[in-house]
Amino acid sequence: MANFPERLIKGYKEFTSSALINEREKYKELAEKGQKPTVLIIACCDSRAAPETIFSAGPGELFVVRNVANLVPPYAPDGNHHSTSAAIEFAVKGLGVKDIVVMGHGRCGGIQAALSTDGAKLDDGDFIGKWMSMLAPVAEQVAATDQVMTPAERQNALERVSIRRSVQNLREFPYIKQMEKDGAVNLHGAWFDISTAELWVMNGETGDFSRAEN
Amino acid sequence: MANFPERLIKGYKEFTSSALINEREKYKELAEKGQKPTVLIIACCDSRAAPETIFSAGPGELFVVRNVANLVPPYAPDGNHHSTSAAIEFAVKGLGVKDIVVMGHGRCGGIQAALSTDGAKLDDGDFIGKWMSMLAPVAEQVAATDQVMTPAERQNALERVSIRRSVQNLREFPYIKQMEKDGAVNLHGAWFDISTAELWVMNGETGDFSRAEN
Amino acid sequence: MANFPERLIKGYKEFTSSALINEREKYKELAEKGQKPTVLIIACCDSRAAPETIFSAGPGELFVVRNVANLVPPYAPDGNHHSTSAAIEFAVKGLGVKDIVVMGHGRCGGIQAALSTDGAKLDDGDFIGKWMSMLAPVAEQVAATDQVMTPAERQNALERVSIRRSVQNLREFPYIKQMEKDGAVNLHGAWFDISTAELWVMNGETGDFSRAEN
Amino acid sequence: MANFPERLIKGYKEFTSSALINEREKYKELAEKGQKPTVLIIACCDSRAAPETIFSAGPGELFVVRNVANLVPPYAPDGNHHSTSAAIEFAVKGLGVKDIVVMGHGRCGGIQAALSTDGAKLDDGDFIGKWMSMLAPVAEQVAATDQVMTPAERQNALERVSIRRSVQNLREFPYIKQMEKDGAVNLHGAWFDISTAELWVMNGETGDFSRAEN
Repeated sequence: MANFPERLIKGYKEFTSSALINEREKYKELAEKGQKPTVLIIACCDSRAAPETIFSAGPGELFVVRNVANLVPPYAPDGNHHSTSAAIEFAVKGLGVKDIVVMGHGRCGGIQAALSTDGAKLDDGDFIGKWMSMLAPVAEQVAATDQVMTPAERQNALERVSIRRSVQNLREFPYIKQMEKDGAVNLHGAWFDISTAELWVMNGETGDFSRAEN
Repeated sequence: MANFPERLIKGYKEFTSSALINEREKYKELAEKGQKPTVLIIACCDSRAAPETIFSAGPGELFVVRNVANLVPPYAPDGNHHSTSAAIEFAVKGLGVKDIVVMGHGRCGGIQAALSTDGAKLDDGDFIGKWMSMLAPVAEQVAATDQVMTPAERQNALERVSIRRSVQNLREFPYIKQMEKDGAVNLHGAWFDISTAELWVMNGETGDFSRAEN
Repeated sequence: MANFPERLIKGYKEFTSSALINEREKYKELAEKGQKPTVLIIACCDSRAAPETIFSAGPGELFVVRNVANLVPPYAPDGNHHSTSAAIEFAVKGLGVKDIVVMGHGRCGGIQAALSTDGAKLDDGDFIGKWMSMLAPVAEQVAATDQVMTPAERQNALERVSIRRSVQNLREFPYIKQMEKDGAVNLHGAWFDISTAELWVMNGETGDFSRAEN
Repeated sequence: MANFPERLIKGYKEFTSSALINEREKYKELAEKGQKPTVLIIACCDSRAAPETIFSAGPGELFVVRNVANLVPPYAPDGNHHSTSAAIEFAVKGLGVKDIVVMGHGRCGGIQAALSTDGAKLDDGDFIGKWMSMLAPVAEQVAATDQVMTPAERQNALERVSIRRSVQNLREFPYIKQMEKDGAVNLHGAWFDISTAELWVMNGETGDFSRAEN
């Protein structure tokens, strides 16, 4: 095994000599008292859409799940491993988060794969194809506009359709549905334009996205 | 649905008025050219162990998967949804990352759950129990040292055992095994002490962890 | 017949006592020499999307055609009255404009009518239904996404699809097609967000719209 | 396709930094509540006769149709596309405007074409010739005064004859005729002298035009 990536060591040293200076006490305290983040964010793995960066979040603030295309799979307590569902359960039932944000972004590779005719199979194991296949029904409907909408428009459309679906899938967790009704947890959608670094927020009633400053 | 969390909007504004100032061009370029991160990090959802923070990483640098206890499940191309495996496939085959880092951390709630006698069941759906059960064989062995090792020692021990297991599970991906042999991809382990903000790096041969500056 | 609307008289007086002060000479000169606008804009009748306002244009600058939903009908020299086509011919062949802009806008009533299941028939004479029916093929495709896209998203989508179609219909005028090839005339698309007063400009190659300042 | 006309971008920036400052709220409100203009103006495309300029109108005030020579074609619900008729129907039946103004102007190129012996054919497709031919009967009669009236006098004469005809054609819309009788809608004529920027208003009974301030 090769040496630990030099760039990461360098970045870590930068961390300890700048950001950490004002936060040493905070880390100590969080270790002793435990974490109590109030927000769970389900975001994408994409290197251009990091929640801590976008929301200037420090230690202890955000509980972050990141998977390809920031998907919340349908609720399926069938005994299989369910990474994202486990994280959601842990955040809500274990840590008591008050807000859950599903954050998508522009130019999402996973969404692009879902819109490709061949599902953009990368490998025979085809994990990414199977993962993105949970969007197949809605991806088809968006893809069907290919005679009138541009590729970029279809991409954006599915990114947002997917966020709405994921928020809806959150409600399939029986306790989340109940907690939302009781006002104990709030569900949100957001979409980050990686080109302009603009943040769009979803209107809970209409499902429409508009820029955070508008 | 309630308003988007005020704290996040505030954090976003902070982002646009500080960090973003010097990075606007970078975001634009990354959007146009696409992302080409060289590192894939499998990290924990924990709010105190964010890769971008720890490694002072900017947009385009890290492709980040975050799940509870930063686990890489055993390779299982069985047609089910496999979030972490999909992300790994996407990063390696789709984006061509050169380094894969499994980063665990101290005080990990998932690891703590794995060491509890009842698997720390949080809900009948019990996603977290099922998720952490993939560590059951090794968790049992570590738990069995309870007559001699303190809870904190067993916690640290399992955190590191788990990292080693996850790195080993990475090698079960046929192409990763081959690429590692060819030197096309390198596998790494790391452990972040959230109390002291110290970074420990895993020795590829022995599996031992030592502090980054040593 | 009632008196001329008071509000218009008032507005006219405001014009003569302010904007006109600096432009009297200009009007005189334009009357003597004739108009030589370099831009033809096909815009909507909508009271919230006036080209002169949006582009701060003074006398002599813009030759403006306004119809419901800023449509350029398919080229059809069949002897019937063709208001918009006549205006285009006059602007290009008679006045020698260099740029033709098709400008649509958000919340367009005509587009909304095109997306309604009943074509939003207003009268037995049904001029508006027949007028908007030229969009029927593309409207149907956009409307078919109603299971996944919100009404506002479909509205925006068709507004933009329609602008692209209209620009394409401009090219059906044989002389426009030729003049564009020769670089004698340029075709453009634009979309005005009446809520935020933001102007979006169409990329000639991809057909995608992006904000003027980006 | 070339870049969006620089002049328009410049004018748009001027708009956002001056006129828009006081009207942002207005645009937002109009978007949310919808437009409710009380006046429909049928004006000419001419760059020197813009309604918003002449009447100092802001967003939401005027619903504007602009075609060559501000013509209201004869009422003909024959299934063909009728741009101006569609706009009139939309304004009256859809938006409930209370006043309809047909505004002509001096030096009108369309009127000039109608008075030319060859109908000023610009192209084999000859849209402008066909469009202006709806004035042929009255144009002939005005042209026949060429032994006694100057070209400018014949020009002005036909401009005003045409306005009267268009107002009359409005009455052919069954519902407009009825609504006028009921006082629900008022029809007006106006003529703008582009040389002096003077506005002339038509007397509903006699059809004569006199200056607004008289």
